[in-house]
Amino acid sequence: MTMPMNQPQSGNAMPRFAGLATMMRLPAAPSAAGLDAAFIGVPLDIGTSNRAGARFGPRQMRAESALLRPYNMATGAAPFDTLQVADLGDVPINTYSIAKSLEIITAFYEEVMAAGCKPLTLGGDHTIALPILRSLHRDHGKIAVLHFDAHLDTWDTYFGAPFTHGTPFRRASEEGLLDLERCQHMGIRGPLYAATDLEDDAALGFQIVRADDYEVDGVRGAVDRMRRRLGDGPVYVSIDIDVLDPAHAPGTGTPEAGGLTSRELLHTLRGVGYMISADA
Amino acid sequence: MTMPMNQPQSGNAMPRFAGLATMMRLPAAPSAAGLDAAFIGVPLDIGTSNRAGARFGPRQMRAESALLRPYNMATGAAPFDTLQVADLGDVPINTYSIAKSLEIITAFYEEVMAAGCKPLTLGGDHTIALPILRSLHRDHGKIAVLHFDAHLDTWDTYFGAPFTHGTPFRRASEEGLLDLERCQHMGIRGPLYAATDLEDDAALGFQIVRADDYEVDGVRGAVDRMRRRLGDGPVYVSIDIDVLDPAHAPGTGTPEAGGLTSRELLHTLRGVGYMISADA
Amino acid sequence: MTMPMNQPQSGNAMPRFAGLATMMRLPAAPSAAGLDAAFIGVPLDIGTSNRAGARFGPRQMRAESALLRPYNMATGAAPFDTLQVADLGDVPINTYSIAKSLEIITAFYEEVMAAGCKPLTLGGDHTIALPILRSLHRDHGKIAVLHFDAHLDTWDTYFGAPFTHGTPFRRASEEGLLDLERCQHMGIRGPLYAATDLEDDAALGFQIVRADDYEVDGVRGAVDRMRRRLGDGPVYVSIDIDVLDPAHAPGTGTPEAGGLTSRELLHTLRGVGYMISADA
Amino acid sequence: MTMPMNQPQSGNAMPRFAGLATMMRLPAAPSAAGLDAAFIGVPLDIGTSNRAGARFGPRQMRAESALLRPYNMATGAAPFDTLQVADLGDVPINTYSIAKSLEIITAFYEEVMAAGCKPLTLGGDHTIALPILRSLHRDHGKIAVLHFDAHLDTWDTYFGAPFTHGTPFRRASEEGLLDLERCQHMGIRGPLYAATDLEDDAALGFQIVRADDYEVDGVRGAVDRMRRRLGDGPVYVSIDIDVLDPAHAPGTGTPEAGGLTSRELLHTLRGVGYMISADA
Amino acid sequence: MTMPMNQPQSGNAMPRFAGLATMMRLPAAPSAAGLDAAFIGVPLDIGTSNRAGARFGPRQMRAESALLRPYNMATGAAPFDTLQVADLGDVPINTYSIAKSLEIITAFYEEVMAAGCKPLTLGGDHTIALPILRSLHRDHGKIAVLHFDAHLDTWDTYFGAPFTHGTPFRRASEEGLLDLERCQHMGIRGPLYAATDLEDDAALGFQIVRADDYEVDGVRGAVDRMRRRLGDGPVYVSIDIDVLDPAHAPGTGTPEAGGLTSRELLHTLRGVGYMISADA
Amino acid sequence: MTMPMNQPQSGNAMPRFAGLATMMRLPAAPSAAGLDAAFIGVPLDIGTSNRAGARFGPRQMRAESALLRPYNMATGAAPFDTLQVADLGDVPINTYSIAKSLEIITAFYEEVMAAGCKPLTLGGDHTIALPILRSLHRDHGKIAVLHFDAHLDTWDTYFGAPFTHGTPFRRASEEGLLDLERCQHMGIRGPLYAATDLEDDAALGFQIVRADDYEVDGVRGAVDRMRRRLGDGPVYVSIDIDVLDPAHAPGTGTPEAGGLTSRELLHTLRGVGYMISADA
Repeated sequence: MTMPMNQPQSGNAMPRFAGLATMMRLPAAPSAAGLDAAFIGVPLDIGTSNRAGARFGPRQMRAESALLRPYNMATGAAPFDTLQVADLGDVPINTYSIAKSLEIITAFYEEVMAAGCKPLTLGGDHTIALPILRSLHRDHGKIAVLHFDAHLDTWDTYFGAPFTHGTPFRRASEEGLLDLERCQHMGIRGPLYAATDLEDDAALGFQIVRADDYEVDGVRGAVDRMRRRLGDGPVYVSIDIDVLDPAHAPGTGTPEAGGLTSRELLHTLRGVGYMISADA
Repeated sequence: MTMPMNQPQSGNAMPRFAGLATMMRLPAAPSAAGLDAAFIGVPLDIGTSNRAGARFGPRQMRAESALLRPYNMATGAAPFDTLQVADLGDVPINTYSIAKSLEIITAFYEEVMAAGCKPLTLGGDHTIALPILRSLHRDHGKIAVLHFDAHLDTWDTYFGAPFTHGTPFRRASEEGLLDLERCQHMGIRGPLYAATDLEDDAALGFQIVRADDYEVDGVRGAVDRMRRRLGDGPVYVSIDIDVLDPAHAPGTGTPEAGGLTSRELLHTLRGVGYMISADA
Repeated sequence: MTMPMNQPQSGNAMPRFAGLATMMRLPAAPSAAGLDAAFIGVPLDIGTSNRAGARFGPRQMRAESALLRPYNMATGAAPFDTLQVADLGDVPINTYSIAKSLEIITAFYEEVMAAGCKPLTLGGDHTIALPILRSLHRDHGKIAVLHFDAHLDTWDTYFGAPFTHGTPFRRASEEGLLDLERCQHMGIRGPLYAATDLEDDAALGFQIVRADDYEVDGVRGAVDRMRRRLGDGPVYVSIDIDVLDPAHAPGTGTPEAGGLTSRELLHTLRGVGYMISADA
Repeated sequence: MTMPMNQPQSGNAMPRFAGLATMMRLPAAPSAAGLDAAFIGVPLDIGTSNRAGARFGPRQMRAESALLRPYNMATGAAPFDTLQVADLGDVPINTYSIAKSLEIITAFYEEVMAAGCKPLTLGGDHTIALPILRSLHRDHGKIAVLHFDAHLDTWDTYFGAPFTHGTPFRRASEEGLLDLERCQHMGIRGPLYAATDLEDDAALGFQIVRADDYEVDGVRGAVDRMRRRLGDGPVYVSIDIDVLDPAHAPGTGTPEAGGLTSRELLHTLRGVGYMISADA
Repeated sequence: MTMPMNQPQSGNAMPRFAGLATMMRLPAAPSAAGLDAAFIGVPLDIGTSNRAGARFGPRQMRAESALLRPYNMATGAAPFDTLQVADLGDVPINTYSIAKSLEIITAFYEEVMAAGCKPLTLGGDHTIALPILRSLHRDHGKIAVLHFDAHLDTWDTYFGAPFTHGTPFRRASEEGLLDLERCQHMGIRGPLYAATDLEDDAALGFQIVRADDYEVDGVRGAVDRMRRRLGDGPVYVSIDIDVLDPAHAPGTGTPEAGGLTSRELLHTLRGVGYMISADA
Repeated sequence: MTMPMNQPQSGNAMPRFAGLATMMRLPAAPSAAGLDAAFIGVPLDIGTSNRAGARFGPRQMRAESALLRPYNMATGAAPFDTLQVADLGDVPINTYSIAKSLEIITAFYEEVMAAGCKPLTLGGDHTIALPILRSLHRDHGKIAVLHFDAHLDTWDTYFGAPFTHGTPFRRASEEGLLDLERCQHMGIRGPLYAATDLEDDAALGFQIVRADDYEVDGVRGAVDRMRRRLGDGPVYVSIDIDVLDPAHAPGTGTPEAGGLTSRELLHTLRGVGYMISADA
């Protein structure tokens, strides 16, 4: 007997503004058993250097996702026809300690992955990329990171703190989690302390498509460079919402003018064609 | 074997800003079976005459309720020690038809009450009071309505429509659902078309404590008058959020200056001492 | 043949959120001829010392006034049964020059008053009280000002400017427009430069009921003092929106904590019993 | 003797933030007699499936239109030199019944068109396109619809309701109001229930330029396809505000990422070159 | 030669909306040397359990304070005539570690107090009360805390964390910093986990005036009880902004209905008559 | 001995949300002595024709600038390595008189320039361009203006007023301050009164790149035209925030759809390569 595939609750069964808010109106599930993929909220924002608030990100993304229907006109994809997907709720992070939260997140993700379920993360600030990458490493070894962001997030420390929203990819590179030949930043534009920031970043395994490059070369040029870099191996996709221009995502805590439009981001993502997990 | 009593999820098990938002962080339940009382969302707002938006009321009340803990300092009440309570989610109203929604709501409530469960309603505009009163009538016969509102809600029709947010208590009175000796408005202050509006209202079974009376006599005077009127029989408590001053509830669709403070409302509610169901 | 009395457009003739926004949904009128009273917008805010925005006050008050119905439950008043009232639109002030605007306002009001029509002003910052008082003076001689405000508005100059939102009543007193035995401030609480500010204010003809006095003596005490001061002569009522606590009027440009509630203000106004013109 | 042409009130006659808000500061008119074209508000939003609020659309568009001047730099058009245009105010829709409102709207528009006046609609949700198309059909027969929207609006029913903001063009096509060879959607991108939604849409008479096509082909490509489709016959232009990206129109009730910029929309509209009526 | 006393920059020297924003427009000072009292910002908010944002509290309070003038009408106080006061800017807290921030705050305050300067704190969440009390203890020994808050802030731990915004006064009591006979909460109303929370609180040295008591007994009754409790010794005044009703302070991260008005709070504070330091 | 170069305060010395807000976290300076360039706030907004608020522009730009770091990834520029820059605070304009404010601004700028310091202006509405150009003229003679704006700002008068936010460049041209062969508007799109507005503008010395031109020709085309026009002489760069589309700058007082993106503006500015002073 086959388990029926979960489907987003129809807008004709319950108005879109009503019902308990789960991601894409999929069922809530108590565990990852039997799931191909699952949405997971990670409401951590104590790693941020400017305005906090991403702790409400998972809840708000669930509420906003009520408009989504199961068939994507642009790609022809109907993912819920072939994948069993549910909403696992939020990781019970410790909002008073980054260190303890990293342990909690890693443990949660390892349990999800042990069940054969691919995590689809709803963040939370970018600090959470590190524990997720650690979890992915056990199954996948060194992987590429495809990183959409205004900022490099490869700084060393902030106020002496090694685990913050600005440092996850340096830590991940130092810990040997990344495929140094295939990591890629997209949409970078934030100001730096010095030119050496760029040299460090390259040494950690990243190449850069700047937001400016979208203006000059268009989405097509950006996607071409991205695909050449990513090649064929496994990729972890990580989207910092500030990759979008503040016009498109005004609530981000570290806005930078000159960013991508939501249409450019969607186009670029369609150029990926494979995906392991995304935190936003 | 006794079923353990549901408790609000502790702030030490999951941060208050995290997790799927249910009312007071109580468990979601698929049906009323085994429950003493249940929260029910009724996201209808097409009965409103000015600004809509109460369709988002249930979802937002659930999100805001995350701060509530189980013990009430002012009354010493710990309701979840003795009552099994859960969140039943929302009634799947038809947002294109008031008439069809009234039927859906009545059917939903009758099923809840047939299970021996007391409904605690999260509205929605005041149109919904009528189908709820119809459901209550089957079990309780004529009951008193204790009605907190800036407006009487005993108008006859709007644009010829008999079922709107301004007319539920006239319909209820006409249908014989109300105990005409015991109904009571609290906090009334909105402007009227003519003095005859007040005469009609009295004939339909209501007495009035105006918002002004709170200024002159204080909460104590208001509560005394309310208790004398309500006497000993069953009471349906219905709170329109616009009973509060716009300073306290600026999002209401029909704001009226000169309203109650949230502290006055809480004090008055503590003077009730019994409750069947509340829609807000 | 009698002209029929203007009435607010009924909520059953046009939804309250619809139609061109006039004050209280009264007809717009091209001139004051035949009117007993008229609403007049004075969208001047270049006299303000902190945040501007009152230039949008008349337009926004008209939009918000759509909820008003013609019968006042608290007073039994039905003013449109006996008074012909309309909306005269806005005075075409010169937003680049306070001096020119004062002339324009005075001329406009004199024409209105020459038609036997009482002005009901929608401001606009408090600079406009001076030209209105000048106009009233021609018909009424020295009159009392009943002034609701957080601030005295009897300062001398700001940056050397004699005509600002903080100085109208000093100018009016100096020009001999005020009845020095009967002027009264209500709700005062803003901080001062020095104790001499109070002495100056008294010399200009004012007594003070502070916002604090409402806390200690209640509305009743405040009304008693106000009525004793006003006595029997003509009164010009002027309400600065910042007399209300910022909880009740957060948009004001010069908020001061500790103000009146909207209920207290309404109660106090009911204690007036006569009114010539109000700017807000 | 010729009636002088209406002109927008000059910013030198009344500040732009002042005066009663009519569309483009044109005169309000009590009827369509003598007008070539007229702005009409249709404040209906009870046909929406997610967030309501478009009932305030006409009032807000009038307020925002105060900045418009009569000469268009991009096109050289000075429409008020040759067309007599005014603001007819709002249709008194019945906000409690979609069915009754459809009748009211149709009757209103037929009277306008009978006077030889072209309607320029300010919506309101998209439900209103159907009664307007019915009115146009009497004079023009089958016409093309040029439809700017994130969504197809050719669904069949919502909750069994045939007349909603998601269904007007299916109803119009079924009723034989449309020229099936010339209808065109622009900016489509919302997710669908299934691929068959697209087949149904084509059968109803529409071709699609997706928002994605703007990214790939630019405005010029989109306009070329549009013009080839529209050909030479009469066209009804209908703009759903959600055709714009949420960055440009965040208040819409059904936001979809990846939309058009306001500059792209303006460019495309300039490519139309003829227009009967627009609802927004 | 005497140093001239610092005065708030006059509104006639620089418009109130202009200039670098210091607290009350006092001069910024690089150190506490020569000051009688100083404003200090402590922008820590990683100790909060719900919504963050108080990290922007010091900056925003400085901007809002621009309206303050030097003479207090209600008390006759002109503090800057006799006290040398300045703005010391913010403590450079470590926003990634509560533990490190506590050390930084204590060190900063000890240096200020060593200079004979009384600190006037602009918070920041309530975690910061503990390091401030530790600093005060060195000079003053056991002191009374007068604590305005919706919540007790004497919980033990959150998620195992001992130093959070809900626990500072338990820690302070355990560390022997408080005068157990004289501590007082004002405005308490938040829900509790159990009645034992109140017993624990009393054992830690506190008595309670609830927000409800203000409704029943008025400000006068509340002040009488407070003064009897505080007696004659040194007092540390600590105001959590959520002691105000959400109508008055909607931005707080842990809103609780039924709170104090700003006028009640101001009245109560005037009943103190002595003050060492206040964090908000 | 060389004075060390001012640097933006590091995010590791003080969190970015903390500290007194100066532009780019540079030191505040009491005078221009020793500075190569300086930020100057000019909080004037009484010259605006629609919504005011730019008086808060300098304060808000300082707060938002806290995220800036010293090295620009796109250009490789590290300006603080070679230029001594500081924040001079705000010009104490007279907010009640445009005429007096013009004098105050001119005097302030002349003193700054006399010290050999280049001004970098934070506005303020566009009225302020005139006094700044007058100051520049003494040192530089006739200069080119590179003007980013939705509007021409070469109107003659508003309500008879010659000095407003819509007229500075007509006055400047009439006064002989401009190099009539080299002035350039960028991003123009606002509606006009008549085609003659364009003829007048050309006669005053300006050429136009419209916002539309960016859609058709891209940034590269716009920059090419701009550079050809500007040639080699001195240029004053003036950016009206409404050159950006309202999606990017919704707070502007005179929004016009169809504007530039922030990325287009940044790209265009990089094409300038020299700069004397910018007001925004």
